[in-house]
Amino acid sequence: MQPLLDAAEVERIIRDGVPMSEFASMRVESVSPGSALVRIVFQPWMIRPGGTVGGPVLMLAADSAMYAVVLAHIGNKPMALTTNLNINFLRRPEPVDVLAEGRLLKLGRRLAIAEVLIRSEGSDDLVAHVTGTYALPP
Amino acid sequence: MQPLLDAAEVERIIRDGVPMSEFASMRVESVSPGSALVRIVFQPWMIRPGGTVGGPVLMLAADSAMYAVVLAHIGNKPMALTTNLNINFLRRPEPVDVLAEGRLLKLGRRLAIAEVLIRSEGSDDLVAHVTGTYALPP
Amino acid sequence: MQPLLDAAEVERIIRDGVPMSEFASMRVESVSPGSALVRIVFQPWMIRPGGTVGGPVLMLAADSAMYAVVLAHIGNKPMALTTNLNINFLRRPEPVDVLAEGRLLKLGRRLAIAEVLIRSEGSDDLVAHVTGTYALPP
Amino acid sequence: MQPLLDAAEVERIIRDGVPMSEFASMRVESVSPGSALVRIVFQPWMIRPGGTVGGPVLMLAADSAMYAVVLAHIGNKPMALTTNLNINFLRRPEPVDVLAEGRLLKLGRRLAIAEVLIRSEGSDDLVAHVTGTYALPP
Repeated sequence: MQPLLDAAEVERIIRDGVPMSEFASMRVESVSPGSALVRIVFQPWMIRPGGTVGGPVLMLAADSAMYAVVLAHIGNKPMALTTNLNINFLRRPEPVDVLAEGRLLKLGRRLAIAEVLIRSEGSDDLVAHVTGTYALPP
Repeated sequence: MQPLLDAAEVERIIRDGVPMSEFASMRVESVSPGSALVRIVFQPWMIRPGGTVGGPVLMLAADSAMYAVVLAHIGNKPMALTTNLNINFLRRPEPVDVLAEGRLLKLGRRLAIAEVLIRSEGSDDLVAHVTGTYALPP
Repeated sequence: MQPLLDAAEVERIIRDGVPMSEFASMRVESVSPGSALVRIVFQPWMIRPGGTVGGPVLMLAADSAMYAVVLAHIGNKPMALTTNLNINFLRRPEPVDVLAEGRLLKLGRRLAIAEVLIRSEGSDDLVAHVTGTYALPP
Repeated sequence: MQPLLDAAEVERIIRDGVPMSEFASMRVESVSPGSALVRIVFQPWMIRPGGTVGGPVLMLAADSAMYAVVLAHIGNKPMALTTNLNINFLRRPEPVDVLAEGRLLKLGRRLAIAEVLIRSEGSDDLVAHVTGTYALPP
């Protein structure tokens, strides 16, 4: 599973096509065989009751990491579409940056399946675990 | 399943605790026994490649509708927490308002399980189907 | 969404291809536009601690109902494959027959997405709610 | 995460409470901190069209591995109940034994969340990936 694009190229494609990724200060930190790491820079509007990072921000991080790892391995085909996403929330995420590591479980001709491990900056514990499916353009 | 709060009360609790709900122009349209309807007002930053509404916006709509229907039926306990959310994307959502109808499938003492039917304003077709679990505060 | 096959034809295809369906006394009760109803006849080996029907039996019922509703609408193409299944367990199922109602949420060219409502014979309450995706043969 | 029970004890509890586990020749191969390995011995009735192992058998393997890893770490409390299970099917499983490795992602007071990696005997490739939630008895 050799990547076709590097982190900067993947970030540019996502930033160009998905305005909300800029809003959420999404950055593609790195790309490696079968995986991609995405950062969401913490901002005060991201909190929820209890002072932790809200669930929709983790879901945005997960979707971005899946999109990043898929694009990195299929090239500049932004019409790849999520068809399913399942997220389990494990621990309350501190109000700091969110790091989402997307890993391809399968890259087929028509479908890609990935998992995403989500952590808070500065901790090894998972705050959420995600699996999802992408339908790939022909 | 009689609601304990009306739509305005639920919207106020969510708006007070979740700043991003204001960002996304989230409105609680109505509450009825076992269900709640949430609207996300379309804004240009919500699009993704293809000109449709991005997946994270639908996930925000789904999470808001689940939170709304749970709060409406358990009262003002904002520490209810999503533990799992599963979303299937069915059709590409037009660039218009998103309507998310949360329905309680089970309201137990410790867990609530809900489904969310997501449509685009002006159409009866589902654009996404969601199920999820909330852990309820003691 | 007009079915192409009736209940007896769908049952025969599943019985021929899936020996465990006979084991579990799986029956296709009915097929109608967009839906199919499957029965698993209760047998004593299906129980789990507490005297209720075990989770794997409900998952078998769900998978059978999804397969049945998909085959009914695409015709005799047994190579349709489940790619994702998500099940929420809602109530403990009594030790009686299991009824699983599969409903198509989307029937595309490459993917079908369905939900399954699972009940115990003699009750309207849901014991489990399922969504899943099938990859369709070309 | 130190286990409280060994593989033989966990297998005995499951065999005593879940008759279908004997049916499917389920064995608990090993237990270690945070994980448990379960084997389903292949039998001809487990096939589906294409000559591969059927989805419900993988779901049984997944549910057994989750139950095994949970019991191993909470002790002999068979009333632990699955509340959610999500499975992604990755590759067609050969008609050989199924190995399911359950790993705890979180062990809370009220909920346990686990993932299960499913392989065919003799191969390192994943044939399915599962996540699930257990409600723990008080």
